[in-house]
Parts: sequence; structure tokens; C-alpha cells
Amino acid sequence: MLVVEYNGTAYAGSQRQAAEPSVQSCLEEALSKLTGSEVTISLAGRTDAGVHARGQVISFQTDSELPLRAFVHGLNYHLPNDIAILTAKDTADSFDPRRQALKREYEYLIFNRETRSPLWRNLAYHLPGALDISVMNEAASFLVGEHDFASFVCGMDDDSKSTVRHVYEALFCERGDVLAFRIVGNAFLPHQVRTTVGTLIRVGQGKITTAHFKSILDAGQPGLAGPTVPACGLYLNKVLYNNNSEEDYENI
Amino acid sequence: MLVVEYNGTAYAGSQRQAAEPSVQSCLEEALSKLTGSEVTISLAGRTDAGVHARGQVISFQTDSELPLRAFVHGLNYHLPNDIAILTAKDTADSFDPRRQALKREYEYLIFNRETRSPLWRNLAYHLPGALDISVMNEAASFLVGEHDFASFVCGMDDDSKSTVRHVYEALFCERGDVLAFRIVGNAFLPHQVRTTVGTLIRVGQGKITTAHFKSILDAGQPGLAGPTVPACGLYLNKVLYNNNSEEDYENI
Repeated sequence: MLVVEYNGTAYAGSQRQAAEPSVQSCLEEALSKLTGSEVTISLAGRTDAGVHARGQVISFQTDSELPLRAFVHGLNYHLPNDIAILTAKDTADSFDPRRQALKREYEYLIFNRETRSPLWRNLAYHLPGALDISVMNEAASFLVGEHDFASFVCGMDDDSKSTVRHVYEALFCERGDVLAFRIVGNAFLPHQVRTTVGTLIRVGQGKITTAHFKSILDAGQPGLAGPTVPACGLYLNKVLYNNNSEEDYENI
Repeated sequence: MLVVEYNGTAYAGSQRQAAEPSVQSCLEEALSKLTGSEVTISLAGRTDAGVHARGQVISFQTDSELPLRAFVHGLNYHLPNDIAILTAKDTADSFDPRRQALKREYEYLIFNRETRSPLWRNLAYHLPGALDISVMNEAASFLVGEHDFASFVCGMDDDSKSTVRHVYEALFCERGDVLAFRIVGNAFLPHQVRTTVGTLIRVGQGKITTAHFKSILDAGQPGLAGPTVPACGLYLNKVLYNNNSEEDYENI
């Protein structure tokens, strides 16, 4: 398994696409160059076009006898400079980075200043205007726990799939002009984090009340929440495989 | 006067160059488009190719009667997306952003992790390996006060110019994997901040002692300090026109 950081700006998403550049195809190409044979990877989390990652987890099988260190440095040599391997680890053959993940941590960055920022371009969503962070955090607290998050998906393509998820943490923190929303859950529905942030922004702008936010959550009806904020502010921070460990990838 | 933020990656520097792109020529072009007549600007600080700014200050004269707000938003419309105007202010005709500046604040970012970071690419200097921040800060404290900083210039092209400067603050702070060096002075010699950081890094790596660092400073001989670290980690944070004011640009 490898832990991967990327700037998603230039990619059509994490997953391989027919004709467009993807993080997966770059990783598979670099792995093939390094090992000398074709490699197919599995990813822990699917990220959309323009979404970034600080800790995406991928896995693959290989006959290569290169040491782990060579996987890190060799791949970083072959990869484009908007993708990098942070760590490598041997796992059981059965390891499945998506199914075995217990929690995912995402972060969404809002650049809250009147004028756009050249230094945060493509790395945060520029949103001018006053935001009341305390009411946003009050609304965000309703997300914590097990809920049917159907209201936060744009439309279901498969009615049979459950939209129940468990959220462990959901909190905004101010860091100068940047407002960072951190959310940890067992798993997330497509666009769930971005639709959640879009709805919480409406709370912070005074357009809807915290009670209205709670009624959207409780209704469980696709299309009620939103809007969906842009991809450039979203980061897959971490994929967690342990409940009680400082060493994130210890038991893999 | 305008306060300007820019990502310097694509520019040959802040000052206009014959054939290469510069921050100055982009600003003058946008100002000419907005006001309908040729405009020449003065800059508070000269920044090298690849150096960024969070608070560069520029000034110009114009007959335009556009309101200040229109200068901010109109220029941000015309400027490329790696340059932005943060604020605009009317000043006396005699205002000289360079000569009247009392202090400059620079920041240098070191990304201190074993592997390179796609998200900090061009925004910080990637330096793997252990750094002892407490000895770096001990050495940095020697910089505070009035000193002849001749050792921190690569070579003088004009012996008659004074190399005495006053440093008010010089401190490293850790923010996760990023080590930020903040230095405030009345003015800085060409490359002084980058050569200072390069020398302090040698202290942090245990290659030279804090006493050796002090002897380099005290010697006042061009070429003794260094190496000069890359431009991509350097930010012109602020230009200060007041000694005792919360409102940075109040008395201009």
C-alpha cells in the first residue's frame, strides 16, 4: 500500500477515465516503469476532478522485490510533480484499501476575503462576504452520529443503496482568511461533503436557520440540500484503518 | 497606492524587464486598460524571479476619477489570476512606497518532510532531514538589532553603499511540516533573507555552530554566508509605514 498526496487541479479525478488524465493512470504508469510489468491499483477513496488529497491510500500486487524505500523514491522520480508518494507498507495479499477503511477524514477550505487570492488559487474556494461561524458549527453538530444523508445527494442512480452513514466529527476552524471544515465519517456519498459545505454556508450567510438545516437533514430527500461547492476546496486528508491507534496504518 | 498579492512562479521578478514577464508590466498593463492612459508604477520592494508577495505596495499617479473600489475590482478583472489587488488608498502626490517604508516583513517557508509535496510545490522550499529549530532560533536572535550585514550579500557591485541594516524580529515557527521563518527589518540587501535562511539551515543541520554563525555575521565580509536558498519559499508579507499603528497604511 502507498499513501499518496496530490494536487487534483490537472486531473479528471482519481479514477481511471477513457481519454482524460487521472491520478490512477499516472500512478499505474509510474508503477509499470518502476517494476517493469503492468500494475493495476485499488484506491481507498474516489475523488472528483479538481479534488486534492493529502492521504489517499492505494494498493496493488507486484512480484517486484524492490525495497519499500525504493517504491517511495522511485515512484516520486517517475511521477509528475503534482502527485507524490509519502509512505509505502507491505500488507496482506487480501488488503482492500476501500472495504477495510473504517473512517475517512476530509477537509474543505473556504478562502473568505473580499478579493481573490493568487496564492490560494485552485487550493481553496473563494467566497467573499460575512459568515457566522458559530451558527455554522451549531448546524454542523447536527451531522454527528448515524443519519440517513439522502438529502445531501443530488439524485440517486440506485434506490436500493443505503444512504445511511456515520459522521464522527464536523467542525469549522478559522485560520486567518481561511475557514477550514473538517469532517470525519465512516464513508461518504458522492458529493456529500461539498453539498454539506454548500448548505452550511447558507446557514453562515443567514439565508437559512440552523433549524431549517436540521429539517433538510431529517427529511432524507435527494435534492433538498445544496448548492454543491467547487471541487478545488476539497482535500481527502486521511483514510483510517484503526479505531484506537496513533499509527494510522499499523494493522494493515 | 495599492496592496498587491502575487504568486511569483511565472514571473522573472517584480521589476519590469526587457523581454520577460514581470509583475510590474502586468500591473501597468491592467492599469492602462482600466484608466485608458499609460501608467507607470513605483514598487515598495524588489522581489526576485519566483518570489511571492502577500502585501507588496505600489503607487502611481492617474487622472482617472474611478472610485477606489473600482480600482480593486476593475484591476482584478484585468489582471492574470496569479496577481490580485487587495486594497486601494488615495495618498499624497509625494508618496514614495519605497523611500517612505519604515519596515518590511518577509517570510520564508521550508517544507521539511522526506518526500516532496505536490500541494506546496512552488510555494515552499522542500528540504528533507532533521533540523534543530531551537539552535536555529538561537542563531537567528543574533540578527536582531543594527548590524553590518555585508557577509550576507554574494558580492557588492558598489562598495560605497552601506550594508548596515536594522532587524527587528527573526524567528522560526513550526506549522506541521512547514517551518516558517519571519524576519522584519527596516530594509534588506539583495538576497539577504535567502542567504540568511541558507546559513541558519546549516546551523539547524549541525554543520556549523551558533558561535560560527555569529562570527560570520560579525566578520562583515561578502561571500561568507550561504548558501542562498531557492526563491519559491520567499514571501514579501508586508510593507510598514507606521511604527505604532494597527492600521498599516493609515498615515500614507
